[in-house]
Amino acid sequence: MVRVEMLAVGRELLIGRTVNTNARWMGARLAKRGSLLSEITTVDDDLAEIAGGLRTSLSRKADYIVVVGGLGPTPDDMTLKGIALATGRPLRLNAVALRLIREHYRERGLGGVEMTPARKKMATLPTRAAALPNPAGTAPGVRLAVGSTKVFCLPGVPSEMKAIFRNSVEPLIANDLGNLSRAYIRLKVEGIYESALAPLISRELRRHPGAYIKSHPKGMVEGRSRIDLDIAVVDKDRAAAEEAAWSVLREMKTGIEGAGAEVTSEERP
Amino acid sequence: MVRVEMLAVGRELLIGRTVNTNARWMGARLAKRGSLLSEITTVDDDLAEIAGGLRTSLSRKADYIVVVGGLGPTPDDMTLKGIALATGRPLRLNAVALRLIREHYRERGLGGVEMTPARKKMATLPTRAAALPNPAGTAPGVRLAVGSTKVFCLPGVPSEMKAIFRNSVEPLIANDLGNLSRAYIRLKVEGIYESALAPLISRELRRHPGAYIKSHPKGMVEGRSRIDLDIAVVDKDRAAAEEAAWSVLREMKTGIEGAGAEVTSEERP
Repeated sequence: MVRVEMLAVGRELLIGRTVNTNARWMGARLAKRGSLLSEITTVDDDLAEIAGGLRTSLSRKADYIVVVGGLGPTPDDMTLKGIALATGRPLRLNAVALRLIREHYRERGLGGVEMTPARKKMATLPTRAAALPNPAGTAPGVRLAVGSTKVFCLPGVPSEMKAIFRNSVEPLIANDLGNLSRAYIRLKVEGIYESALAPLISRELRRHPGAYIKSHPKGMVEGRSRIDLDIAVVDKDRAAAEEAAWSVLREMKTGIEGAGAEVTSEERP
Repeated sequence: MVRVEMLAVGRELLIGRTVNTNARWMGARLAKRGSLLSEITTVDDDLAEIAGGLRTSLSRKADYIVVVGGLGPTPDDMTLKGIALATGRPLRLNAVALRLIREHYRERGLGGVEMTPARKKMATLPTRAAALPNPAGTAPGVRLAVGSTKVFCLPGVPSEMKAIFRNSVEPLIANDLGNLSRAYIRLKVEGIYESALAPLISRELRRHPGAYIKSHPKGMVEGRSRIDLDIAVVDKDRAAAEEAAWSVLREMKTGIEGAGAEVTSEERP
């Protein structure tokens, strides 16, 4: 088990301006590899909140903490300052980061652009941190090790977050995870309440303690209860994962139909 | 300042199956009242994770912790067990909760429905907790006080979460907040980089230290940088909030146009 936490920084997420699609994307990437985000913490653009969030995450001995947002040039962007505060590593102009920023402007035909304080800020990193190329924007990503935890800072702009995560973060996590396979099936069920589904799920979890079986109630349509039922099994052996998931599926289906309800679809999302 | 934290429970949020629209909704409700969610924590359907999340949130002396998800009848629903673990309050069948569940079934013409273990589970609450009516579903909400923190547990199904929040949580928070007004303006800006906007924002924040001014880069269109610029001011006095927000708007606009860029729209979202 590899513990990967996300620390999302940005008031827009706390006032309902933005929904955290970055967490959805990263969670889904990890899930395809048989893992997940162990925890997602969202904090305000505030030094104490960012530092507190990082400290709490570090105290849980996460293997990876991916901090998302707050790397830009504007005054609300204070992620690196927060990390400096939490780790006791003062901020310093980083030569590699400065070069990456200059190259970014040059590639856009802005070769002679002045290195204003706002631009230098994006190259001012905690000591013993490395700058990571940002193929999709200006602010470099940042990597640092704190004890046994690898901390990565990525911009909040989705295209930039994704590009740096794919290039500089995901390969390390993938290597730690090894080759896991996930078999994932989603059933749509009609005509049964969650409370009637519960004993069927309990029985299957006794047969397959490692399986993930979760019901998502979707409300009533024409007096009939609709539920999505997700079944997932992770295993090093692809065939074993598939076999277990199909076994759960068969038994659940038999139980659901035995209760007079109906499975209206089976998907492999 | 009233500190309201959300603790969202559910693996679906950690594997990218579901995006946390509950957080967006609740954050927006609070923002309209001049407040925000101070922190959002998302954890897995796991006893230790839920208990740990609650303990961490309690340690930050939140005024309100709204736990969302994990109240249903299925085995993955273990929020109340996690709270019992974190607070040392054993679970017990709650007579009011049981009555609410029976009434819910009766209203749906299922008067004689058997109180199976799965159904009783939804009425099994930590001691010294109160059951809250759920006008949109089966599982009652739960309220308990832990020290000076008010903890609320709401179902994860959005319609149920919203109904109980509106009826049983929001009035208390609103009362604590008092009457605040928020003036909120969004500008769409074209032709300026965030790094060039930064000194203009810094200057306005010196003039109006309580204002919230945040740029959201929206990428390049035909070689021109596009940015959304949010301006918000909260004040007990509505006119003062409006006046300050408009003052920031005017100055920002002058600065942006002085830099050769363009404000293409002004919205009141």
